[in-house]
Amino acid sequence: MVSELKPRQAVLKMTPYSPPTGGRAGKLRLDFNENTVGCSPTVIEFLRERLSADGLSIYPEYDETRPELAAYFGVAPDQLLLTNGTDEAIQVLINTYVDDGDEVLLPRPSYAMYRFYSEVAGAAIREIDYRAEDLSFPLDEFLAAIGPRTRATLIANPNNPTGTAIGLDAIEKILAAAPHAAVLIDEAYFEFYGVTALGLMARYPNLFVSRTFSKVFGMAAMRMGCLFGQAENVAFLHKAQSPYSVNQLAALAARAAIRDTQYVRDYVGEALAARDMLCQGLERLSIPFFPSQGNFVLFRAGGRAIEIRDKLRAMGVLVRDRSYEIAGSVRVTAGTREQAARFLKALEEIW
Amino acid sequence: MVSELKPRQAVLKMTPYSPPTGGRAGKLRLDFNENTVGCSPTVIEFLRERLSADGLSIYPEYDETRPELAAYFGVAPDQLLLTNGTDEAIQVLINTYVDDGDEVLLPRPSYAMYRFYSEVAGAAIREIDYRAEDLSFPLDEFLAAIGPRTRATLIANPNNPTGTAIGLDAIEKILAAAPHAAVLIDEAYFEFYGVTALGLMARYPNLFVSRTFSKVFGMAAMRMGCLFGQAENVAFLHKAQSPYSVNQLAALAARAAIRDTQYVRDYVGEALAARDMLCQGLERLSIPFFPSQGNFVLFRAGGRAIEIRDKLRAMGVLVRDRSYEIAGSVRVTAGTREQAARFLKALEEIW
Repeated sequence: MVSELKPRQAVLKMTPYSPPTGGRAGKLRLDFNENTVGCSPTVIEFLRERLSADGLSIYPEYDETRPELAAYFGVAPDQLLLTNGTDEAIQVLINTYVDDGDEVLLPRPSYAMYRFYSEVAGAAIREIDYRAEDLSFPLDEFLAAIGPRTRATLIANPNNPTGTAIGLDAIEKILAAAPHAAVLIDEAYFEFYGVTALGLMARYPNLFVSRTFSKVFGMAAMRMGCLFGQAENVAFLHKAQSPYSVNQLAALAARAAIRDTQYVRDYVGEALAARDMLCQGLERLSIPFFPSQGNFVLFRAGGRAIEIRDKLRAMGVLVRDRSYEIAGSVRVTAGTREQAARFLKALEEIW
Repeated sequence: MVSELKPRQAVLKMTPYSPPTGGRAGKLRLDFNENTVGCSPTVIEFLRERLSADGLSIYPEYDETRPELAAYFGVAPDQLLLTNGTDEAIQVLINTYVDDGDEVLLPRPSYAMYRFYSEVAGAAIREIDYRAEDLSFPLDEFLAAIGPRTRATLIANPNNPTGTAIGLDAIEKILAAAPHAAVLIDEAYFEFYGVTALGLMARYPNLFVSRTFSKVFGMAAMRMGCLFGQAENVAFLHKAQSPYSVNQLAALAARAAIRDTQYVRDYVGEALAARDMLCQGLERLSIPFFPSQGNFVLFRAGGRAIEIRDKLRAMGVLVRDRSYEIAGSVRVTAGTREQAARFLKALEEIW
């Protein structure tokens, strides 16, 4: 039978998004900006303790998780939405504020899911490029692009894959220029940068902030994120979210993770030292790179980007080619100093 | 600052959906149609074995899960989409096929999330009531309601909360009448009924079938579902789905769960015996009920529905009031015979 079933135009137009997540086991994984040593052992202990056949059979309850996470992040429980990774935070935000045909303003390049969920929603996407010379945020162009039709804008701070960040003054300018639009500041890499927009939330009803447990907390497998906003707005977000989207084990793991703050601090220290090593090593090889506020460094491999990625892979080191966004660029995660040394040694051999 | 930020009309119009999931620990939980004895112990063993700090830090990979689950369900790997519970299956299906203003045809009452995600999508929802006398599926009215504007229809089989089911002949009539619409047969309670539409998939490109690990498999906490369709359609669904929406531990747990088929068979046998007991007990008390093909029974408590739910709760037994859908009705989950006896004893005291 010939199918008469047709997907929506919005879906037909989309290019499939398939990040290269297969076959990563056993390799040095510097390709997804994960925590490269794993989550805190206390998370595993807590999960082992709580794992039970009976417990798994029950629909998730977040009564304990929500206030504990809210206290950790310094917000009220009704200013916090638990989400199935930051991806669901993005989706719920867009589903709440962006109608078919509405305009979403995005800096480019940035996290692929901003565009992805905007496309699913049928939004009109307007993209402003990061500045070519230093990959800094194009604030003036961005402010100029905000118009009455802008219904949402999503900004990673620091940004991925550029590594560049904006300060609170720039964020305030955007918030003030777009009072009618939902402004998401995605702080997935906050711990490596140290600047948060959470303190602006009381003054700006259009501000939303997201955090993730996939990066410094080492829980990417668990899909756990948080979306913050003023209580009135969070109530609207709740309406557009399934009541059980977050796995109960992810919620449990998050509670354990925030108790081991020393582990997070130690890992941040190590990753920042590794990032310095990466920058010095690239400099030594005369490979241009962009100073980064995240746990990764983007460098220019020119025409050799794909070749370098593939040769590194053959040597057991995974990095991410980003040539499709910034010509000839490769992104490497800053994990430990030992891992940075291993990467640099391999790169030196190839280069 | 007065907020100029306005949610979409579609979201403003929605009523918040907050199922009563709090404070259920320590009680006899016959309110959510979960597996009331828990998942297979082999699932817990497998998770304990695989739990590692390093493993949790990696973004999910489904390379092993997808073919194993496909083999279990008797489909090809490219006919299967892993989803964050059935809820995400519903959302992805609607996001793929239903545009703002498109018509979604739903039987009423049924699983709340069909309407929920249709509303989020801004769909025009048309509902056809189950037959008042016996809560049977309104096939003629349903077929008559299918029109050229119908873009999707979502049917639980057996249905929740009515417990009534339709046969493959009725499903084929619907599929044939709506070749331009996505037809989802949600088989969350399949194991208690034994009839599946999966065998029709080769002949009907507009057919989608979903299964869940939240019911008989006892993994509601994990949010794990599967959505089946012809490979060409699943490729479209993929385009509208985040690449990491399923928690890695949920994927692992599902692999262990499908290996312990004896556990599932035993539980089904026990739950069906408990369902018989529930029906006999209700009959003894002269309380009208609806014969059910699921692991639950809907009975008529008349004006006493809320009172009975509350008194049972005080006695440590949770059931679900469904008066808001079917006047004076209460739903009780069939778990074990021992649990059924405990429920009946409590009900008898109250009644």
